[in-house]
Amino acid sequence: MATPVTLLDPQCCTPLAHDIISRDEAESLAVTLRALADPARLRLISLVAAHDGAEACVCDLTEPVGLSQPTVSHHLRVLVDAGILTREQRGRWAYYRLVPERLDGIASLLATPVG
Amino acid sequence: MATPVTLLDPQCCTPLAHDIISRDEAESLAVTLRALADPARLRLISLVAAHDGAEACVCDLTEPVGLSQPTVSHHLRVLVDAGILTREQRGRWAYYRLVPERLDGIASLLATPVG
Repeated sequence: MATPVTLLDPQCCTPLAHDIISRDEAESLAVTLRALADPARLRLISLVAAHDGAEACVCDLTEPVGLSQPTVSHHLRVLVDAGILTREQRGRWAYYRLVPERLDGIASLLATPVG
Repeated sequence: MATPVTLLDPQCCTPLAHDIISRDEAESLAVTLRALADPARLRLISLVAAHDGAEACVCDLTEPVGLSQPTVSHHLRVLVDAGILTREQRGRWAYYRLVPERLDGIASLLATPVG
């Protein structure tokens, strides 16, 4: 499969409990889930989503998450690489924004089919 | 929090993009997502769900997943501990069954609120 594993397109893939997923699909989904499977990153997602204007810079996040700026920047980079956040540089700071379709896509792969 | 982190009750918790999740909620969800974030375990979930009668024993799973029985048993144990599969011993073999409400609960924590 040509698609890099870090750029899983949830639209492309078989829901987990619908049919047998391929090795490539399993690898892609596992990479994305690993990006989510960290308490600091989950808190960062919820902090960004709940922030004014649904975007936040590292400067807004270090204190509530209780980690150093380099550590927070590392976690944010993992989330950007997984397509869960976007990053936009504005002046001195980078601003992060949630990609809701991405979380919804992951959720739809995990949810069991109705009926 | 008294609830063990491996027994996250998705009904209890704040959806990720709805409000700021607590440290305990983030820790519980991360533990559950780590159980899912493995390609072999994702394939096993889909194999169990797609199997006749929606249950399967290790004997049904080793060949399609291409791993040894001890390795498959280890992965199945992680999924049982995370509440994603149930295990029932019947004679010589243990049978595994998907807990759909569990996957749906995890999905509902990841999906972004409507409206």
